[in-house]
Amino acid sequence: MAILSDVATEVLIPLAAAVGIAFAIAQWVLVSRVKLAPSSGSDKDVLADSLIEEEEGLNDHNVVVRCAEIQCAIADGATSFLFTEYRYVGGFMCVFAAVIFVFLGSVDGFSTRSRPCAYSEGKQCKPALFNAVFSTVSFLLGAATSVVSGFLGMKVATYANARTTLEARKGVGRAFVTAFRSGAVMGFLLASSGLLVLYVAINLFQLYYGDDWEGLFESITGYGLGGSSMALFGRVGGGIYTKAADVGADLVGKVERNIPEDDPRNPAVIADNVGDNVGDIAGMGSDLFGSYAESSCAALVVASISSFGVNHDFTGMCYPLLVSSVGIVVCLVTTLFATDFFEIKDVKQIEPALKQQLIISTALMTAGIVLITWLALPAKFTIFNFGEQKEVSSWGLFLCVAIGLWAGLIIGYVTEYYTSNAYSPVQDVADACRTGAATNVIFGLALGYKSVIIPIFAIAVGIYVSFTVAAMYGIAVAALGMLSTIATGLSIDAYGPISDNAGGIAEMAGMSHRIRERTDALDAAGNTTAAIGKGFAIGSAALVSLALFGAFVSRAGVKVVDVLSPKVIIGLVSGAMLPYWFSAMTMKSVGRAALEMVEEVRRQFATIPGLMEGTGKPDYARCVKISTDASIRQMVPPGALVMLTPLVVGTLLGVHTLAGVLAGALVSGVQVAISASNTGGAWDNAKKYIEAGASEHARSLGPKGSDCHKAAVIGDTIGDPLKDTSGPSLNILIKLMAVESLVFAPFFATHGGILFKLF
Amino acid sequence: MAILSDVATEVLIPLAAAVGIAFAIAQWVLVSRVKLAPSSGSDKDVLADSLIEEEEGLNDHNVVVRCAEIQCAIADGATSFLFTEYRYVGGFMCVFAAVIFVFLGSVDGFSTRSRPCAYSEGKQCKPALFNAVFSTVSFLLGAATSVVSGFLGMKVATYANARTTLEARKGVGRAFVTAFRSGAVMGFLLASSGLLVLYVAINLFQLYYGDDWEGLFESITGYGLGGSSMALFGRVGGGIYTKAADVGADLVGKVERNIPEDDPRNPAVIADNVGDNVGDIAGMGSDLFGSYAESSCAALVVASISSFGVNHDFTGMCYPLLVSSVGIVVCLVTTLFATDFFEIKDVKQIEPALKQQLIISTALMTAGIVLITWLALPAKFTIFNFGEQKEVSSWGLFLCVAIGLWAGLIIGYVTEYYTSNAYSPVQDVADACRTGAATNVIFGLALGYKSVIIPIFAIAVGIYVSFTVAAMYGIAVAALGMLSTIATGLSIDAYGPISDNAGGIAEMAGMSHRIRERTDALDAAGNTTAAIGKGFAIGSAALVSLALFGAFVSRAGVKVVDVLSPKVIIGLVSGAMLPYWFSAMTMKSVGRAALEMVEEVRRQFATIPGLMEGTGKPDYARCVKISTDASIRQMVPPGALVMLTPLVVGTLLGVHTLAGVLAGALVSGVQVAISASNTGGAWDNAKKYIEAGASEHARSLGPKGSDCHKAAVIGDTIGDPLKDTSGPSLNILIKLMAVESLVFAPFFATHGGILFKLF
Repeated sequence: MAILSDVATEVLIPLAAAVGIAFAIAQWVLVSRVKLAPSSGSDKDVLADSLIEEEEGLNDHNVVVRCAEIQCAIADGATSFLFTEYRYVGGFMCVFAAVIFVFLGSVDGFSTRSRPCAYSEGKQCKPALFNAVFSTVSFLLGAATSVVSGFLGMKVATYANARTTLEARKGVGRAFVTAFRSGAVMGFLLASSGLLVLYVAINLFQLYYGDDWEGLFESITGYGLGGSSMALFGRVGGGIYTKAADVGADLVGKVERNIPEDDPRNPAVIADNVGDNVGDIAGMGSDLFGSYAESSCAALVVASISSFGVNHDFTGMCYPLLVSSVGIVVCLVTTLFATDFFEIKDVKQIEPALKQQLIISTALMTAGIVLITWLALPAKFTIFNFGEQKEVSSWGLFLCVAIGLWAGLIIGYVTEYYTSNAYSPVQDVADACRTGAATNVIFGLALGYKSVIIPIFAIAVGIYVSFTVAAMYGIAVAALGMLSTIATGLSIDAYGPISDNAGGIAEMAGMSHRIRERTDALDAAGNTTAAIGKGFAIGSAALVSLALFGAFVSRAGVKVVDVLSPKVIIGLVSGAMLPYWFSAMTMKSVGRAALEMVEEVRRQFATIPGLMEGTGKPDYARCVKISTDASIRQMVPPGALVMLTPLVVGTLLGVHTLAGVLAGALVSGVQVAISASNTGGAWDNAKKYIEAGASEHARSLGPKGSDCHKAAVIGDTIGDPLKDTSGPSLNILIKLMAVESLVFAPFFATHGGILFKLF
Repeated sequence: MAILSDVATEVLIPLAAAVGIAFAIAQWVLVSRVKLAPSSGSDKDVLADSLIEEEEGLNDHNVVVRCAEIQCAIADGATSFLFTEYRYVGGFMCVFAAVIFVFLGSVDGFSTRSRPCAYSEGKQCKPALFNAVFSTVSFLLGAATSVVSGFLGMKVATYANARTTLEARKGVGRAFVTAFRSGAVMGFLLASSGLLVLYVAINLFQLYYGDDWEGLFESITGYGLGGSSMALFGRVGGGIYTKAADVGADLVGKVERNIPEDDPRNPAVIADNVGDNVGDIAGMGSDLFGSYAESSCAALVVASISSFGVNHDFTGMCYPLLVSSVGIVVCLVTTLFATDFFEIKDVKQIEPALKQQLIISTALMTAGIVLITWLALPAKFTIFNFGEQKEVSSWGLFLCVAIGLWAGLIIGYVTEYYTSNAYSPVQDVADACRTGAATNVIFGLALGYKSVIIPIFAIAVGIYVSFTVAAMYGIAVAALGMLSTIATGLSIDAYGPISDNAGGIAEMAGMSHRIRERTDALDAAGNTTAAIGKGFAIGSAALVSLALFGAFVSRAGVKVVDVLSPKVIIGLVSGAMLPYWFSAMTMKSVGRAALEMVEEVRRQFATIPGLMEGTGKPDYARCVKISTDASIRQMVPPGALVMLTPLVVGTLLGVHTLAGVLAGALVSGVQVAISASNTGGAWDNAKKYIEAGASEHARSLGPKGSDCHKAAVIGDTIGDPLKDTSGPSLNILIKLMAVESLVFAPFFATHGGILFKLF
């Protein structure tokens, strides 16, 4: 029925993934051309070809050597943390894999008999035991892909940070391109490998499953669960690490000792820079990979029970993967706009260039969706809508994808409005610093609360339209639409911490004020784009988890989730409480770890002779170890809360209460996550607004060290755990509980609700 | 069928109300014995009878005269604010009354024809037009009762504050009794008049309605709406007033000028004390009256469609009112434990005495419920459960009331644990001040989030049990159970601001440090009980609004509120956002008004010669005016948001989306409200912990003026709007939207959902 043949689909998807990976490698080669060694004559020749705005200390061998040293220390710290983290989490993953196998295997008493299919009438489906095996395998596959993605991202980032610093000597444009290209390496690698592994897994699984597509896509869901479980620990562990170091370094360095940020005398400075790489790069990479894997799985599992699945229309079935494939190509073109088609010549052009990326990718992607919808979908198809069948037109489905895509853009822009210091909300917060830290915090909290309104309406409209058009399949593809430009989103996101690190290295290597100004400008733009990235992540998480929720309800055989039933309402109320419980844990973890760090930094300043004068050498490694130990220890309780809740609720209270919990966590978590991220982002930029002093108003609040600035620093510090630990982890909480419920749905449907059965 | 005859019920309810009112008057007489005039010889004789621990400056005429002056200024400010507020809100109420009449009248096209009843088959019920008339009347009645309650409470409080100060000269025990008795005047007056007015209204309405109990109790619901609408403006307006003055006074006085709290040189000091009376007394009184009125109405309207209503069992029908009647008697006995049976001889006995009140009233009330359940209920009766009939035993219903009562106690104790500085959570927050304001705020926020967990589980268990036993009627009587000891709860609550004012007056009148210490001890205990009171208010609001939600859904003819339907899910997501929108408005209002206040106080310090030295006189009236104007202006947008949302959603999007909005606002609002209240309470008491320096640990953080203390003051200031403006207003948001939806349900069911009908 569709124009695209099955064979073409089989070729196109891996081709797009391969193109993405090739592009990532090409970007990496370009970055690696920047030599992290004192330049020799031959290097000079290479540089002479390109337009160099100016050259500052290009031949200062000492600076280059120090940059290389610092980079090495950061990379070592990050690698050692990630290895420690992966060792612990790896153990947990193996245990959890066993749990998946046992729970799912027990659905049909570990029998190897085939069973009648649930949706394709009259057909036989594969035994539950083998679904358990394949679910376990795809779970481990998802976790492994997530680990590799996060790790490679971190490697690239720690490879690129010092190179960005060195390029900053030659002008802001070159530094921007280096940082952005490095971000793109991660973005494309992650998007492409996520797609490729999923695609290969489907094809391999099909060798066993044959035409039992229900079982096939049910077990594939484990891929999303694996990706997201890993992401949870990555986000939480990395988030605690980075903020413990950041808050600890700031509290002693900036507030007590009055030394600038990233000053090499501060013993926590290396830990702080390591934190950016393990939290904002590896953690965030795993997070968005998890979102992407889950939304693909949600769309696939819902599609498998539509007419695509029943009629074995392979191209229609793969529509979600085709959308992602088109996304990779679109993002590739979009990236060229930043790195090749235009050139950054002034610091003021950085933020517009990054924002352009969002608009260009969204606009191009809209055309891309039109094309792939026309090629891949039949004019009409049917989907299951909780027992009823529903006919959907291909253009209806296009509308769903497009509305998700554009809702993402709206959320991005609203986030920018509330967190960029170019607009009045952040300026008002900065202004409130006149009367001290208390009013700053009151205004900041109010700003965060207010910033929830429009994104929620955007999400609500997106949900209503896509749900009305194509039920849960509509929601799933809307989520995919929002994530279809993930490669660009990730490039922009990863660009931020790389620039941040580049600035830190410039400061530590003792480079000139002028170079530090350039890296600061790169960093400030990165702050806003980081907030936008978080907005995307949260918005897509809301849609993804709703789609997973729908798939779970379908799979668990629940016909109605009635708010008026006591089982559902208690789930709803308790689920809405979970984001608070989780936030309480993570915030307190950061607070505790930061206090430990403060003690250590104070101790070093007190005991190491000549540290303050720059003659003594601080013990960076001890601070790195404190952050590592604290984050590994503290990530367990919040992680356990999220991983165990669906299991405990489903087993003891059954699917109705679990459905309530998922819905409650979703509707409450989205608000907490958005407000936390934006409040933190606004405080950070209010501080930067005062520091930069770019307007009459800003100068009246400054300069650095004034009472206003001190109040702003307090706000910034409070915002750190909100925007980088609690807030972004919450979207994983929402998604992960939903995907876990979906994977365990057959078990809960069979054996769940023990407590209600007993009493 | 029941032991209690209809006639006995007719007598018992007004009798209990009369006893309560008589008791309130008796307490007032006792308080009024303290003369607010320089004591003459004859007064001395009266005092000589009682045991006086010590007498300090009893004959200092100047002090007494100054106390009287200050009291007069506070009372004038409060009266003038309330009159201004009531004038504006009165206008709004008249407009809204017209809206109610027009909307409800239009249900049946303003026809005067009788209609077939919805629940009593084969019977004719009164025309919709007359339901509209009576709903409007009961709306105005509820609003008027709320106004009178709040106003009288304020009058009593401003009458008692200076008297408490004067009694403090004679010992802490006498001051405590005076403050507590004054609180009891308000508590009993409010509980009794609320019951009496409702009872009289039912009897009068019955003259018209005859045996159409459906119509009768439907229109009575307007009483709850009226009470709650008034409470909304009272809470928000009063909350903005008190916190604008408080924050403004603290920011300039404590932080900039380094003068103590309540120092008479601070121009905002009178406004601050007025604020306690209009916010914490009048606002809180209206709020709890609203809760009480709504839970009674919810229980009555659900009962009217049970077998009580259908069989015209008057005593069974009045069970909710009988529970409240017993509550008044129980609270009366409980009060005597604090004022007569035991005597406070030391400051350490104050907090235990107040906490005892909670336990005694809960224990006695449990017995009271047993008695009244045995007397008033038939062994079995049937209720409607969304179309199905359900049989309930009288002891099942007892369980519902009792579980509500005890859930309230649990919430109270958890709140105390998290907000009293006798336990580790607040001490940890105080300890976090060592590293500055930022860690204080991070720990405080985490504490607030964490404090949500147990209350939510208590509420969830309460909901599950009462729902399972007696559906929505169970929830309604559980809410009534939690509020049955409202007279004691209000006494304790009102005691707090009275003590706070008494301390302020002592400081302003220049009384000795020793007396100030006594009033401080009274105040500190009041802080914790205020937090407990807020916990009760929020817990009961959750149950009440769930019951109202159930009644709304029944009344609107909705069979199922399915989370899986797009109309419901968009309501759920948007509803969960409303508490954030509302908090953003109120927090920003406080921030703005506080900034205005700061400007004014700074201006006065700068321009009035000799103000700082105590020779110039500040212009208190201007600060009072700023608070008044700001709060009147700023209460409009949040008020409008709450009042208009149900109307707009119901009319445009229909009953399903509205049901989603109500459920979303409920599950998300409860969490925001509890965490905001407890975070604020914890910061306040962490500051007091450092100030009091009662332990080794506390002394290591202090004294007043140390860096730790300054960090604690910042936390306290941030907490002010959270705990006294946003937090407590949120429970009104939840309840009010639910009761408004219930009142307008017939209209929405007939004409609602225009937007979906059009497209």
